This record gives sequence, structure tokens and C-alpha cells, in this order.
Amino acid sequence: MSKGITSRTDDYSEWYLDLVKRADLAENSAVRGCMVIKPYGYSIWEKMQRALDDKFKETGHVNAYFPLFIPKSYLSKEASHVEGFAKECAVVTHYRLKNAPDGSGVIVDPEAKLEEELIVRPTSETVIWSTYKNWVQSYRDLPLLINQWANVVRWEMRTRLFLRTAEFLWQEGHTAHATSEEAIAEAEQMLEVYAKFAEEWLALPVIRGVKTPNERFAGAVETYCIEAMMQDGKALQAGTSHFLGQNFAKAFDVQFLGKDNKLDYVWGTSWGVSTRLMGALIMAHSDDQGLVLPPKLAPIQVVIVPIFRNDEQLNAIYDRLEPIIKDLKSRGISVKFDDSTNEKPGWKFAEYELRGVPVRMAIGARDLENGTTELARRDTKEKQIVPIEGVADTIQALLEQIQTNIYQKALKFQEENTFKVDTWAEFQEKIETGGFLLAHWDETSETEEQIKEATKATIRCIPLDAPEEEGTCVFSGKPSKRRVIFARAY
Amino acid sequence: MSKGITSRTDDYSEWYLDLVKRADLAENSAVRGCMVIKPYGYSIWEKMQRALDDKFKETGHVNAYFPLFIPKSYLSKEASHVEGFAKECAVVTHYRLKNAPDGSGVIVDPEAKLEEELIVRPTSETVIWSTYKNWVQSYRDLPLLINQWANVVRWEMRTRLFLRTAEFLWQEGHTAHATSEEAIAEAEQMLEVYAKFAEEWLALPVIRGVKTPNERFAGAVETYCIEAMMQDGKALQAGTSHFLGQNFAKAFDVQFLGKDNKLDYVWGTSWGVSTRLMGALIMAHSDDQGLVLPPKLAPIQVVIVPIFRNDEQLNAIYDRLEPIIKDLKSRGISVKFDDSTNEKPGWKFAEYELRGVPVRMAIGARDLENGTTELARRDTKEKQIVPIEGVADTIQALLEQIQTNIYQKALKFQEENTFKVDTWAEFQEKIETGGFLLAHWDETSETEEQIKEATKATIRCIPLDAPEEEGTCVFSGKPSKRRVIFARAY
Repeated sequence: MSKGITSRTDDYSEWYLDLVKRADLAENSAVRGCMVIKPYGYSIWEKMQRALDDKFKETGHVNAYFPLFIPKSYLSKEASHVEGFAKECAVVTHYRLKNAPDGSGVIVDPEAKLEEELIVRPTSETVIWSTYKNWVQSYRDLPLLINQWANVVRWEMRTRLFLRTAEFLWQEGHTAHATSEEAIAEAEQMLEVYAKFAEEWLALPVIRGVKTPNERFAGAVETYCIEAMMQDGKALQAGTSHFLGQNFAKAFDVQFLGKDNKLDYVWGTSWGVSTRLMGALIMAHSDDQGLVLPPKLAPIQVVIVPIFRNDEQLNAIYDRLEPIIKDLKSRGISVKFDDSTNEKPGWKFAEYELRGVPVRMAIGARDLENGTTELARRDTKEKQIVPIEGVADTIQALLEQIQTNIYQKALKFQEENTFKVDTWAEFQEKIETGGFLLAHWDETSETEEQIKEATKATIRCIPLDAPEEEGTCVFSGKPSKRRVIFARAY
Repeated sequence: MSKGITSRTDDYSEWYLDLVKRADLAENSAVRGCMVIKPYGYSIWEKMQRALDDKFKETGHVNAYFPLFIPKSYLSKEASHVEGFAKECAVVTHYRLKNAPDGSGVIVDPEAKLEEELIVRPTSETVIWSTYKNWVQSYRDLPLLINQWANVVRWEMRTRLFLRTAEFLWQEGHTAHATSEEAIAEAEQMLEVYAKFAEEWLALPVIRGVKTPNERFAGAVETYCIEAMMQDGKALQAGTSHFLGQNFAKAFDVQFLGKDNKLDYVWGTSWGVSTRLMGALIMAHSDDQGLVLPPKLAPIQVVIVPIFRNDEQLNAIYDRLEPIIKDLKSRGISVKFDDSTNEKPGWKFAEYELRGVPVRMAIGARDLENGTTELARRDTKEKQIVPIEGVADTIQALLEQIQTNIYQKALKFQEENTFKVDTWAEFQEKIETGGFLLAHWDETSETEEQIKEATKATIRCIPLDAPEEEGTCVFSGKPSKRRVIFARAY
């Protein structure tokens, strides 16, 4: 245990929580299950937001904002939706407090009771489709391609920072289309946006797939998902995109007049990723010394630690580096020059390692004489002495290498921990060591539930690229046409 | 009444609401007092957010995120704070719904009652200072310069889109400092950030001032504000910045060890602007034909309307303009080329006028032959024929002129509607026609309240630049040292 961080082999779960706290990413608040996202953590989330938002806009979407509150009756309008969300939601019943008669503080004013209770949104399909009803009359009003960045609340009983919290931040896209084909294409397009974002920004290889009916979003016809593997071999669902069919259009009576002059219900999709991605990012790449951040999401990409005994030495170092810092910044690279005197260089090295800064540049008076500097990369911990001349080029190339390397390492891990399993004995054994199990399944919910009960493994997805392959269900022995992915999951 | 918009002279208030709806900015939702911000309105808010966020970061602030919910008891910890917010807040009392026994839908599950009720944040001082307690031990931990973008809820009984809604979007800065001086300097700095933003982005001249004790934020020692004048002569508070003294530090026991090794309470500020700014933007500049947007906040800065009879003509126009569109975009100017065939050019002209697009460029086959195009500016409605060659330069210059002109026009209006008033008779007369009244006041809350009761005018602020001037209170005749600004307000 170093820096107050439990090691991954000792207790992976504790390691994660220690890291979230020690690296100043988030902490629990006084309100059960709600987190405070600290500035360093939030700055990573902001980078994710910006990148995703750009991708949404490139694919023709616009942002809007819908109310936080949902009338209780709205939730009931889509039958499976209410089943999915009613059991864990925050309910607003009153709109005023008043002073307690005994002077002990404030109490809820019983006279300020709402006529109809409001639910704090757990997701916004209902409130959005009730709005779309007024926006859509004709095929000319379609498609609606709208996204919202918002907070949502699900009253989870067991919470864990970023991975499962009562309140979390997310984006939710809600689109409306004239045809089923168009809506399906939209849901698939957004899944691909998420998958590319996970791979290119989070350096996180993901499996694209669809959920089984059991694991579908409450109200969807089809739920597409991306699944990632964490370092303990467990799966983490990193994003979902739902084809809603006409379910919400029917629930909220959203019809349109088609080119053929006939009335029909609108076809819908919804898709979202959340601050859960922060958990995925941390768990996929980091180590016992701290965070390992892919350069594209690192708030500080390069930290420069000058090593000096006096102001004269510091000034000489700064004078030499000033144009280099400018050069780096002009390339869009974020640089921190840490000349604070509160702490020694060794302490700083450890601190920036903890925070996952991809490249550290150390430079002292002797380096200056030699015209060299030491670059250390966070991912492999390799150090190299390089000429100061041209160091901006070196750093830029290094950042790209690191981004690629982190992805490749995670991909290799995922591949090495994905197993084809053909017998139930093998399944039971393999699931204990973690990883993705590719196994045949008879496509029944009963089997899926029995496997879950026996092993805590769920079907993460039916991969989109799963080849047709005759086989027999690993549990029931019944015939099966393709392998699906089983794993224990966060 | 044109385009379904009431004229300003007929009914200013209806004009505003018509405009908000017709220009697709926002609408009321099914939840009382909560609005839907529609994509076009939200894209303006996004531009405001981006500009403000940049300014916050330039002045050393970072973003974070704190919980939506506040334990009821937290609100009571600062005495005047609870007085200010308890009377209009959304109270969460339960965390689950269940099926009604009679099958009529869902009801609140009485067994899922929270031990302590939660308030949906009306502002976050309490939850943030309860967090800061754990973040601050020594002067080395200070200052904390943190901002949050969030939704807040205040259960207002009378709501109006953007200006006063139960839920609204805002940013709230919360800073903690080692000295009173530093906190005051921070509060003043952020007021200036808001004032500059209002002037340079919203093209909205503002008066910088401080509130009277009556109008102070609940829990503040001093409330700084910017006040703007709408076209009906009423005032709109466009932003506030509060010096909190040690009030919240004492309420939540946030102490730090100073350089002198003594324990002291931390000094605080908070500051915020909200989607109310959208209301200010609309009401300050727009006219009976629609929105007038300052170019810096216009989602579309230039619309190009080609006038064509067939594809050949359209293609010829597009071929000529393509490099110009590219050029404009490379200058960061947002351009829309509207070649849709659903609507005629005249309809498009009216529609973009309604939406406040600053510059419209119309071009037909004959223009192409002549090498000219027609530019129309939204603010003055002036049109000019200009050469196509070099039109990107012309447009860029025009956008700058429009930004300046809108500001100058609003400034002139503000100046022409600001009056020095020295007698009560004059005050009563002038307040009816609207505008800012500069009058002497005896600095008592009693007088302030009596004037409000008699005329509905409140003291908007004591201007920061108000010169010392001996005088007598316009109402009580008692001595006064400076004039303050009275007005009716939104």
C-alpha cells in the first residue's frame, strides 16, 4: 500500500475507492448516495462532455433542456417504464417549509402539499414525449434530434462513487422519426458514436452488442450497448442506445401525418452515457501508484518540474523553457510548470503520478548545461533523457504514443481474458477468475436467470459481430445459433 | 400584430411571451412553473455559458459539482438563509412509489419515507460550505475558487418564461478566502466580470451597484449587483455577487489555521447568473417583428437565402458562394445557406427576422450576373447592395457594427430614461412612465418599504460610482449623502 492506496491485488474494490479519493476526483456527500465531484474529477468529465457534445452536433443533434420534475402519473403511462423506475425514485410531495412550533428548526408545512406528487427525473422519456406531442404534426416536423445534459436521480440502495450514485450527471438523447428503419439507424449510429468515443478518447476497447430482453431498458424494443472489461475481469456497461419502437409515442399519443396523408405513431430512440464513464476510465487503466489517464482526457498533459536551489537557477530554467511552454500550448497541449516551493521535487513526482499526468518533464541546472531534460511517461514509467532542443515535438509524439499504448494494453487484456467456454463445468470454473465468457445460450430468460443465480454472471450482450455458429446451450444443452458474452458486472 | 406577436405598445408583457414562443426559445411544461428550453433558445444559452465559463477560468476558477439535495436541517444553520428560502422550496419526503391497491396507477409508498426530508437546492451555499469544512484546514488550502453549472428550484407562485421559473439553470460561484479584503476583492471582481459580459456579449449596458440591506441575498453581508433597463423602462437584475463575510463559515464551522498559527473562520463569496439573462437579452433589444440578437450570441450570424427557379440557378449560386461560406466559417462566423424549397424567400426573410439573425444575404440569378448581393441587417433593417467579391470582409465588419450599434442604442435608451428626481410629487409622476429615478434616500428600511408600497418602485441599487452629494430624502425629507436608483422591476 503506497500513498494511502490499497493495492489492486489486495482489494480491487478498496483500491478503486482509495484512488477516487486520493486523486481528488470525488467524495461522498452528506446526502446519502449523492457525490461531490471535485474540481480535478470534474475537469476530466468536462473534457468528456466537450468531446461527446462535438460528436452529437457533427451528427446533426441539438441540445435542449426539459424539466427536472415529472408528474407521478406520467411515469405510469408506459407500463414497463414505471416498473423499471418507480421502485427507486425521489418523490417531491410539498413545496414549503415552516418554522417548527417548538422553535427547533424547520418542518414541512402540511398545508403546502402538492396536488400531484412529482418525481425527480430518473430519465426523461416521459416528460420529453409529452412535449414532443405538441411539436410533431407532420412528417415535415421529423426527425427531432435532441440531446440534453442533465442530472438524474435513481434511489439506489448500494452506491459507489461514479459507478452507482443516487444522483448522477449524464446526457440523454431523445429522437423521433417517421420510420422504424430510420429510428433503428439512429440508435445504431449513436452506439457507434459511443464506441468510437470510448476507444479513441477513453482508450477503452468495447464490445458492441444488444441486450437480452431481460436486460433491456424499461420501455425499449431493443437496447444496444457497449461493454468494457475492467482490470479485475468484470464487465462495465459504458453506454446504451435504445430503439423505443412506438412505445412512448403510443403512451403519449404522438402521431404524425405522413407523406401518404395517413396518421401514424412516431418512432423513437434514446441514448445516454453518464459520469459512470469516470469509473470505467479509472478502473480500466490505473495502477497502484495512482491514475493513468489517456492524454486526450488528462486535464494536465505535461507537468514540468524544475529542480532548483535558488531563484537564479529557477529563472534560468524558466527562461530556457518559456518558448517551449508557449510552443506546447499553441499545439493545444496543456502544460503545468510547477515552481512551487512548498514541496520537494520527489513529492511532486509522486503527486503527479497519483493524478495520472501522462508526461513529466524534470529539469535542473546540470540538465540546462547539457542541453537535456528527463521525460517520464506515466503509463509505462519509462524515463528517457532527451535534448531540450525540439522537446515540444518529442512530447507531442510521446502523448500520441501513450494514448495508443494505453488502448493497446487494455485491448490485449480484454483479449487475453475472453474465453470460449463449451461446458457448464468450464463455465463455473472460468467465471471465478473473471473475464468475458463466450458461450452458447438457448435464448430463454429462464436459463439466463438460472445462470445468474448460480454464478452471478449476466449476459452482457449479444455481440453485433457474433458469427452464426451451431452449438448447444452451456447450461440447458438446448440448441443455440450463436455465442453471447457472459460476465460478472459492475 | 404581425406574425402572431402582440406589439410592444399594445402589451409589452404579452409581446415578450409571444416572442419567446414564436421564436422557439422556450415554452411552459406540464409541470407548474417549469419550462422547456427549446433548441434555439438553448443554443443561445450555450453561447452565454461558454463565454462566461471562459471568463471564470481566466480569473482562476475551476468547476465542480455538488449534490442536488440539501438535508432540511442544513437550511436552518444560517438564520437569514432559511428565512429567505424555506417558504418556496421543493421537498422530497419519500424514495419509492408502488402500485395502487385499486390498480389505478402508482402511489407514494408510505413505507419509503425519508428519515430527514431533502430540499431540492434553491442555491448551494449550505451544501457547499458543509463540504468546504473538510477541505480547509490551513491558509495553504485557500483560496478555494469554485464554480458550478447547475439547475436550482425555487417554488415561485407567479412564473414567467426565463424571468421567473420554478426550475432554472444557472452558475453559482462559491469561494473561500483567508481575509475579508480578499473576499471583497473577489466579489467585486466577479461583479465586473458579469458587467463586462453583459456589455460586451449581451450588448446590455448595466449599472454596477450594491443592494440595500432589505434587498440583500439571504445570508450575505453585502450584495453587489448589475441592473439593466428593459424597453418598457423597468429594471432587471442581471447578476449578483455576494460578500458573505464569515456567515456560512460560522454556520458550518469552517475554520483555518492562519500564517500566524491562529484559528479563524474563513471568508466567503458567492455569485451567480441564470437563464434570466435570456429574458434580459430578449426584452432589451427585440422589436415587434421578432428577436434582435447581438451577433456574439446569435446561433446563426449570417443567413444566405438564394433566390432560384431551378436547380441550375441554385447550383450556380452555390458554386459562387461556396468559397465565401468557407471563408466566413474559417473566421468563426456561423452561416446558414437555406436552399430549402418548402418555403418561399419572403417567408424565409420573415422567419429569420423573427429569429433575430443579424445579417441576411439574398442572392439571385441577376445578382450573380451583376456580381452583387443584397445584405440586410436585422437591427436597423437597412439593406445595401454590395459586391460579391470581398463580401466576407463586408459581413465581418457589419457584424461588429451591429454588435456596437445594439449596445449603443440600449445605452442611449437607458440614459434618456434615467432621471434625477428631487420631490415626492415628481417621483410619483415619473415612476409611472418608467425608467430609473435617481433620488435621495434617508437610508432607512422604513422609507424604502413605504416608497415600495406607494409606487411599487424598489431601490435597485446604490451605484458604485454614485458621487457624494448632500440632499434630502425624496420621501421623508431627512438628510441623504447620495442618490440611489429607484425603479419598478422584473
